[in-house]
Amino acid sequence: MQVEIITIGDEVLTGHTLNTNAAFIAEKLTDIGLEVQFVTTTGDALAQMEEAIRMALKRARIVITTGGLGPTEDDQTKKAIVKVFKRNLIFHENILQDMKDRFARRGIEMPAINQNQALLPQGAVFFPNKGGSAVGICISEEGRTFIALPGVPREMMQIMTDEVIPYLQGLEVGHPHKTIKLRTTGVVESRLAEMIDQDLNLEPGVKLAFLPAYSGVDLRIMAAADDEQRASEKTLTLERYLESKVGKYIYGKNEDTLESVVGQLLVDNDKTLAVAESCTGGQLGMLITAVPGASRYFLGGLVSYSNDSKTQHLGVDPDLLEKHGAVSEECAVAMAHGCRERFAADYALSITGIAGPDGGTEDKPVGVAFIGISSIHASYARRFNFGVSREANRARATYAALELLRRDILDIK
Amino acid sequence: MQVEIITIGDEVLTGHTLNTNAAFIAEKLTDIGLEVQFVTTTGDALAQMEEAIRMALKRARIVITTGGLGPTEDDQTKKAIVKVFKRNLIFHENILQDMKDRFARRGIEMPAINQNQALLPQGAVFFPNKGGSAVGICISEEGRTFIALPGVPREMMQIMTDEVIPYLQGLEVGHPHKTIKLRTTGVVESRLAEMIDQDLNLEPGVKLAFLPAYSGVDLRIMAAADDEQRASEKTLTLERYLESKVGKYIYGKNEDTLESVVGQLLVDNDKTLAVAESCTGGQLGMLITAVPGASRYFLGGLVSYSNDSKTQHLGVDPDLLEKHGAVSEECAVAMAHGCRERFAADYALSITGIAGPDGGTEDKPVGVAFIGISSIHASYARRFNFGVSREANRARATYAALELLRRDILDIK
Repeated sequence: MQVEIITIGDEVLTGHTLNTNAAFIAEKLTDIGLEVQFVTTTGDALAQMEEAIRMALKRARIVITTGGLGPTEDDQTKKAIVKVFKRNLIFHENILQDMKDRFARRGIEMPAINQNQALLPQGAVFFPNKGGSAVGICISEEGRTFIALPGVPREMMQIMTDEVIPYLQGLEVGHPHKTIKLRTTGVVESRLAEMIDQDLNLEPGVKLAFLPAYSGVDLRIMAAADDEQRASEKTLTLERYLESKVGKYIYGKNEDTLESVVGQLLVDNDKTLAVAESCTGGQLGMLITAVPGASRYFLGGLVSYSNDSKTQHLGVDPDLLEKHGAVSEECAVAMAHGCRERFAADYALSITGIAGPDGGTEDKPVGVAFIGISSIHASYARRFNFGVSREANRARATYAALELLRRDILDIK
Repeated sequence: MQVEIITIGDEVLTGHTLNTNAAFIAEKLTDIGLEVQFVTTTGDALAQMEEAIRMALKRARIVITTGGLGPTEDDQTKKAIVKVFKRNLIFHENILQDMKDRFARRGIEMPAINQNQALLPQGAVFFPNKGGSAVGICISEEGRTFIALPGVPREMMQIMTDEVIPYLQGLEVGHPHKTIKLRTTGVVESRLAEMIDQDLNLEPGVKLAFLPAYSGVDLRIMAAADDEQRASEKTLTLERYLESKVGKYIYGKNEDTLESVVGQLLVDNDKTLAVAESCTGGQLGMLITAVPGASRYFLGGLVSYSNDSKTQHLGVDPDLLEKHGAVSEECAVAMAHGCRERFAADYALSITGIAGPDGGTEDKPVGVAFIGISSIHASYARRFNFGVSREANRARATYAALELLRRDILDIK
C-alpha cells in the first residue's frame, strides 16, 4: 500500500528546521507494513500546498500532511483542503468548547483567534489532540484516505501514535508484516557485513538493512508474509541467525538504548557508577543521565579538562602525565581508578583523547582515545581510533565507554 | 528563481535517517537568494527517481539531487539521469586516475567496483569531490540546470559549498538579496514579538522570521532589492531597529553560537571557568567543550548527581541540603561557590533542577531549575521554569547558564 507524506512550512523548506516530523511518520508507517514512496516538503504558500496534495492523491492511497493547522494567517492547510476536496468549513461547537476548557485549565482566557480552529471541513472525521488546539483531520474520498496533522512535533507524535496508527491498522491496508531492530555497537558496518554475509540466505519477503549511527550499527529485519504469524516466524529465523553470528555485539532490541541497557545492568547487579571525562567534556555523564531514574546507579562525574584537575581531583600522578601524556593508556587507567575511589563507586569509566581539529601528533593523531574502566576486580584501558570530526570522535568515545562497561559486567571478551 | 531539491535513499524515506542534506542545501540556496519551492524524498527505486526528477524539471529552473552516486547496485541516480536526459555514459580516464591516486594515498588498492564511478553522462560538467570518489554532475538543458551530488553528508557539503554555490552565483540566477540572523536567548518568542511588533514597519521586500530553538530565538532578516547594496541597506535598517528594541537579548550574529561567544568573552578577559552540574549530568561541560580550543579557558567540571557528591566534592553544607533541598537557590549558590574554589577558577556556573519526568512537587514542579554563578565579585543564583520534557529542561538549563555568565561578564541587567 503506497503512502505519501507532505510536510508543510517555510522553516523546513528553507532548511532552518530539520524534517523530524517526516522521519517520525515514515518510521511509524513502515513499522505497520506501509510503503512510503515520496516525502514532499512545501512552504506555506497555498498554491504549492494544493499542488503537492493533488499530486500525492494521484499517486498514493494514503496521504498524510503535517503543519499549517494553527490559528494564524500563515496556517493555510485547511484552505488547501477546502480547495482540493471542494468542501465547506463547518463550525464545531464541541471542539470550540474543548479548546476553551483547555485554556481555562491553564488559567488563561482563550484568544479569539483560536476560534477558527473549530471550523473544519465538512464530512471529515477528527483525531483528538491531547496537547494542543489543532485536531487531526481525516477525509476519505474515492478510495483514498487523506489525513492532516498539526506540525508541532509533540502534538503530531501523540496523534500519530494514539490515533492514526490504530486507525490505519483498522483499515487493514498494510501487508502482514514484522519488523525488528537488533542494536549492535563496537563493530563497524563492513566487518559486521563480512561476519553475517557468509552463508546468509534470506527467505523471500525478508529484508536486512544495516543502519550505522554514532551509537553503533542497527540491523533491521523486515519480513512480509501472507499472515502475521508467518512474518514473525521469518523474522525470528533471521534474528537467531544474526545472534549466532554477531551476538556479542548485540546489546539490545528495538527501543533499547545502550545507556538504558547499561543502566538496567547496574540496577540488576546493584552497582554504582562514576565517570571521569577529558575530551568528551561531560557527554558521557549527559548520556547516562538522559535515562530517567539514573540517580539509582549514577553517582556523578569529574570533567578534568586540564592536567591540573586530573592531578588534583582524580589523583593522577604528575610524573605519569609528564612521562606518558594525558592521552595515554596509563592516564586513562589512573583517571578511572582515581574516580572510582573518590566517588566510592563500584565502577568508574574514563575517557581521554584527541577530539580535534588540532592537537594530533604522528603517534596519536586526531581521533585517538583511551577509555578506561575500574572496578573492584581490575583497572584497565583500551585504545580506540575514531574518525576525524570533533563531534564524531566525542560521540563515539562516549558510546565506546558504555560498551566497555557492558562487556565488563557481562564478561564478554 | 525557483529551485527544487530531491533527496534519494530508502533510509531517508523510511525515517531512519533524518534529511539533514536537504536542510543544508536549502539553507545555502536561501542564503544566495534562491527560492526553494519543493523538497522531495524518494527511495532507491529507479522509476520513482525518474518521476521525481521529471516532475521537478517541469516546475523549477534549478534541480539538485543528493544520493545514489556510489559504486554499488543500490546507486541508481546515474541510470535515472541517462533515462531522463537521454544521454549515454562516457568513460573518463582522468577521473578514474584521480580515484586510483586517492586510494593509493591511503595505501589501499582501488576495488574494481569503483571503476563505474568514472562512467558519467555525456555532455555533463563535473564538480570535484575532495573527500570521496563520487564527483558532482551538472547538466544544462533547455534553460534548466540539473545538479547531482553524492549523499555522504561531508562530501555533499564540501561540493555544495566550494563548487555549486559559486557556480550558481556565477549564473546570476538569484535575486539581489541579503540575509542576516540575529541570535537571541533568555527570552520567549511571544515576548520578543511583543517588544518588536509595536512601531514595526517593514520596508517592501523585507521579511522577518522568528526561529525558536532550545538555545533561544533567532531573528532572521531577509531583504530583497534591485541590487546587493540596497538589499544590505534594508537589512541594516531592520537590524538597527531590532537592536534598539531587544539588543540586550542578542548575543551574536549568523554563525555565532552562545558557547563560542561566551568562550571568546573569557579569552578576551583572560578568565577561566569551571562548572558544577546536577540534573544536566554533564551537558553544560559538553557544550562548552564543543568549541575547539576550549581548554584555553575551561578547567573542568563536577557532575554531582547525588547529595553526597555535592557535599564531598563541592563542599555543600549537609544542613543546607537538609533545610532547602538540592534543588534550591541556596544549593545552586553553594555549588557554584564550591566549584570555583576547588577548580581555582575565575568563574563557576552551577545547575540544579528537576528534569523530570518524576521528582516534581507542588512548590518545585518538573522544569524548575536554579542556576548559580560565582566570581570574585559575587555568588548568586536565579530560578527558572522550563518546559515539561526531560530533554528540553536539560537543554534550556544549559543555555540559560551560559547566558547568565555572558550577562555577568558584560554587566547586562
